[in-house]
Amino acid sequence: MSALDVYWLPAELAATPPGNRVVVVVDVLRATTSISTALSQDAARVVPAPTVERARQIARGIEGALLCGERQGLPPEGFDLGNSPRAFVRKVVSGRPLVFTTTNGTAVMHALEGVEELVLACFRNGEAVARLLEPDLVDGGRGALIVCAGRRGRVSMDDAWCAGHLVGKLATRLEGLALRDGARAARALAARLGAPTAHGLGRTAGGRSLGEIELQDDLSVCAALDDLTVVPTWRDGAFVKGGEEDP
Amino acid sequence: MSALDVYWLPAELAATPPGNRVVVVVDVLRATTSISTALSQDAARVVPAPTVERARQIARGIEGALLCGERQGLPPEGFDLGNSPRAFVRKVVSGRPLVFTTTNGTAVMHALEGVEELVLACFRNGEAVARLLEPDLVDGGRGALIVCAGRRGRVSMDDAWCAGHLVGKLATRLEGLALRDGARAARALAARLGAPTAHGLGRTAGGRSLGEIELQDDLSVCAALDDLTVVPTWRDGAFVKGGEEDP
Repeated sequence: MSALDVYWLPAELAATPPGNRVVVVVDVLRATTSISTALSQDAARVVPAPTVERARQIARGIEGALLCGERQGLPPEGFDLGNSPRAFVRKVVSGRPLVFTTTNGTAVMHALEGVEELVLACFRNGEAVARLLEPDLVDGGRGALIVCAGRRGRVSMDDAWCAGHLVGKLATRLEGLALRDGARAARALAARLGAPTAHGLGRTAGGRSLGEIELQDDLSVCAALDDLTVVPTWRDGAFVKGGEEDP
Repeated sequence: MSALDVYWLPAELAATPPGNRVVVVVDVLRATTSISTALSQDAARVVPAPTVERARQIARGIEGALLCGERQGLPPEGFDLGNSPRAFVRKVVSGRPLVFTTTNGTAVMHALEGVEELVLACFRNGEAVARLLEPDLVDGGRGALIVCAGRRGRVSMDDAWCAGHLVGKLATRLEGLALRDGARAARALAARLGAPTAHGLGRTAGGRSLGEIELQDDLSVCAALDDLTVVPTWRDGAFVKGGEEDP
């Protein structure tokens, strides 16, 4: 049986690089929730950008691109959309390429673009991600690594909760699955916290920040469990729809 | 009410430096357990060293110094003692200055030597550390930060467990204590795991490594709860006995 690990912070990547493991990035509030939502609403693809300036530059080169993301939680000047999953509705995003920059999530996605297989997870697509990982976690599999985006270099409760939720799901199904310390700690945390709720997410540092800018209605969307089958998957410089082969 | 935070990894120090908060370093397996034990057995002081070579150099300059610590869990050549808390008995260490170098713990202690107040915690002195922190966590206090040493740049279950145990203790006593995400996650983890046991510590990555070099008997010492009143406290380049004013 291969091993499953959770990095509570991107900084752990420097200590133990991913190697050939499948890598799953989690940024529940809100980048991976928003990107999963956008692709489920048929956005053509999502190009992550590390900075606002780079996002503007990339968007200028892509016909029909929508410029999306946030700084301090809000869309920078001239952006078409922020980072609220509620904004990524079909009539706005269907068929459109999105260029996306956020404070925490897209930076780690960028740092990982060289890995063999890179996907995005949130509570909404947790079941779909778990199914996708299963073959890599049986004997002879590549193993998998869940990387929490964190919050400005600090541990983020919501990301660790979601990572632990995924670990719990997989460990229950795959008897004998080897869990590293980070994965075991995340699993224990998620077991303690239970199923995600808007109230629970609202008590995290990220959730409180959303309240301060009156975006607390995003929380119930981010807390929705397994209502999406899309797994954003890295292909040729963008995240595209993956994970729906078994609808 | 001031705030309590837990850094799951020393890397978080770069994101948010300690400022004037009291800083508590935790390295349950085994540096902070061993140093707490050594001072409780009347070692004169403990000088942390970042490398084996530097430890040898420092020890040559201190009369009567014992050279202590580990690489890959075992004492380097020429060392008087390893990093097993069982070795730090009164008849060996009483009155002696110790020079100490370990893979994870002493590196972070070194990085923190400039902070206003720096102490060491483990399960053995948890209650004494909690008492010491209380005045800093009430209104107008400096606030406190618990830093987990981790394991080669990765999250370590045992350290987060102990940090969460301290958070739980303090949050129960100090109504309204503000907990940052790292502290809340650690507290939830510790609540899930319960009181420390040799078996529980033995299932962590660090615990398994101790088993591999046949030092599993260290685990029950590291899992002992509140049997020491000493809080190792940084003074003039070394850790000395603190925390016993209220025996």
